[in-house]
Amino acid sequence: MTNPSQAQTQSQAQTQSQAQSESQSTKVRYGIIGVGNMGSGHAELLRSGRIEGAELAAVCDGSAERREWARQKWSGVPVFETSADMLDSGLVDAVLIACPHYDHPSEAIQAFERGVHVLVEKPAGVYVKQVREMNEAAARSGKKFGIVYNQRMNPLYRKLRELISSGELGEIRRTNWIITNWYRPQAYYDSGTWRATWAGEGGGVLINQCPHQLDLWQWTIGMMPTRIRAFCQEGKHRDIEVENDVTAYAEYANGATGVFITSTADAPGTNRFEVTGDRGKIVIEDGKMTFWRLRVPESQFNAENEIPFASPECWKIEVPHQGESPEHAGIIRNFTDAILRGAELVAPGEEGILGLSISNAIHLSSWTDDWATLPLDEELHYAELKKRIDASTYAKKNVRAASRPADLSGTF
Amino acid sequence: MTNPSQAQTQSQAQTQSQAQSESQSTKVRYGIIGVGNMGSGHAELLRSGRIEGAELAAVCDGSAERREWARQKWSGVPVFETSADMLDSGLVDAVLIACPHYDHPSEAIQAFERGVHVLVEKPAGVYVKQVREMNEAAARSGKKFGIVYNQRMNPLYRKLRELISSGELGEIRRTNWIITNWYRPQAYYDSGTWRATWAGEGGGVLINQCPHQLDLWQWTIGMMPTRIRAFCQEGKHRDIEVENDVTAYAEYANGATGVFITSTADAPGTNRFEVTGDRGKIVIEDGKMTFWRLRVPESQFNAENEIPFASPECWKIEVPHQGESPEHAGIIRNFTDAILRGAELVAPGEEGILGLSISNAIHLSSWTDDWATLPLDEELHYAELKKRIDASTYAKKNVRAASRPADLSGTF
Repeated sequence: MTNPSQAQTQSQAQTQSQAQSESQSTKVRYGIIGVGNMGSGHAELLRSGRIEGAELAAVCDGSAERREWARQKWSGVPVFETSADMLDSGLVDAVLIACPHYDHPSEAIQAFERGVHVLVEKPAGVYVKQVREMNEAAARSGKKFGIVYNQRMNPLYRKLRELISSGELGEIRRTNWIITNWYRPQAYYDSGTWRATWAGEGGGVLINQCPHQLDLWQWTIGMMPTRIRAFCQEGKHRDIEVENDVTAYAEYANGATGVFITSTADAPGTNRFEVTGDRGKIVIEDGKMTFWRLRVPESQFNAENEIPFASPECWKIEVPHQGESPEHAGIIRNFTDAILRGAELVAPGEEGILGLSISNAIHLSSWTDDWATLPLDEELHYAELKKRIDASTYAKKNVRAASRPADLSGTF
Repeated sequence: MTNPSQAQTQSQAQTQSQAQSESQSTKVRYGIIGVGNMGSGHAELLRSGRIEGAELAAVCDGSAERREWARQKWSGVPVFETSADMLDSGLVDAVLIACPHYDHPSEAIQAFERGVHVLVEKPAGVYVKQVREMNEAAARSGKKFGIVYNQRMNPLYRKLRELISSGELGEIRRTNWIITNWYRPQAYYDSGTWRATWAGEGGGVLINQCPHQLDLWQWTIGMMPTRIRAFCQEGKHRDIEVENDVTAYAEYANGATGVFITSTADAPGTNRFEVTGDRGKIVIEDGKMTFWRLRVPESQFNAENEIPFASPECWKIEVPHQGESPEHAGIIRNFTDAILRGAELVAPGEEGILGLSISNAIHLSSWTDDWATLPLDEELHYAELKKRIDASTYAKKNVRAASRPADLSGTF
């Protein structure tokens, strides 16, 4: 990818090896680590031609069965057993990490050490301690580092962030997110031995389903909580050992409060994000944004008003539809542009630690039945997580079929 | 009211004293204790003729100014300085207690001891300990005892209760009430020295604004929490000493959880009550009820389903409008019917302790920064409340005008 002009002189009809040669100078050559559900989806996207400047250069997977499947599916794409071999092949400029959560940081660190750009799937990792180490490796490498927070591409949340950062909503006072529409039946949990186990995933709905919302909870408002008091219920209406029902209360430095409620057993669930500020309230629900906007800030009205039962004038605004979200394609496109043209990353990898810190704090608060302050006590969280992994006697009774092979070891 | 048939022989045109004489045998003669905002509203209602079988027989108020005002407003209605004098006059069969919160139980006990029926305004009292004593006095007296939980007359909440008690929603799993639309500007708090003080009201939004919702939170679902973890913020955006911003997390015996969020400073606030059960979800918001109903219970679907990403079939039902709420008139009518004809009370006074227990538990949890279990530790709660009253150094800087006179002493 050193000289884009070279590519224009070459023919479209060429062998795979010629294509590889070309791409070294014109395109970002992606290698995918782990071709399970997410990884194979990314591979298809890269093969579709929808991401300008990007191509699928190689894949790797620890499962022989999965490698054979990949060879047949993506004819001509080199398939490796280990990510180290793939990196050492010189075929890739960037890796897209889609292996089990626990291995995200170590895979990223290995790639950074070899001077390869990294786009990591969510969550950044399972515990903050390892993710901080990943961030440090990224900084040392000088390479591009992104995270697949595709919900940051969603125009609704981008609009919310813009309305807040521009001051339209005023100082934030309350953030209530009821995100209980992560319905997962027992059949889902039975589809892989690693699913919803401390050793295999390191958590439940917080680690697997909610990373996007936990990121957006802080990204849209531009504030991290200062402390959290949370209540996790494990195996709620499901035969699993990790949490799948969570209520978390958060406090922010400016006195604002928030609530985050999630579940995998509610049917139907709710996805309603309400943010209240000094200038009104914004609610995102059912894919729509409504902004109840005060003509004057509440604090100003309150200071000037002399009538006991008066309230500030408020306009209900239906914010125009913001268009479709480019989702994963948007994230990979942005990451590719960052490498090729220095575009600003929408989801810098280093920011993966923010949502994960909230996630870890929720776990820690519930485990210790106490407040968890932020920045997180990483050592205490790690020790508590380890305790649960070591103490686990959980064995799935009825694993029906692997919807996604255990492509890389899910063990801790 | 001993012999209804006597009344039918008498003329409609009669003097006040004749009317009183008649009413002793045909109507419930109400005496109102405290004619501030609420009490004078009730007096007007009784005078309006809208409550069949009820009449305004007397009022009492500790404020000379207020008594003079009452004499001029309700010509011919006896006005007393003390409730004891009013009770001893023999003019009243029932009292409607609308004095400051702290005095509700003592006034009720005094009336029960004289064999008079009691309809008490909400809250039942300020702390469970005194309210339990009131309930015991009611039981000893054998008299009718009601509480002005007029929101129990609201067809929306009655319908919710019916859908739950009949099993339509299935076993309850989650109850989230965001009730932040209790906007009160500083001018409201400045309208009385007793307002929003520990000594004058014994609390803030929980005691003054939320008693209805705290009652409905348990009444509609037919379950009390077993423990509560709550977070109260005092003087949030307002110059007051009590709580006006509350987030409470509740757990129930069956494993269900709930959240209750309230505030007096959010503008505009939200009033959204969401209840999830094994058969779906009901949301009451903006005066409408929506029922997302599953064709088969979630638990049954989950047990039979074998598809990892499947979810149960769900129908969105817009429950027909349930009509207007008779509000206070409905409660007084029901109480009158209970006395005259043995009608079942919609809001038995003894049940006032339920919502207040939740309210007290929320306070206690926040004060002790710990769980509060139910039934409540009454002594601990009382001691903590007393501590706040004794330690109060709060003095209102800028009391503008009394929107309601301090009709009976608000001191503890």
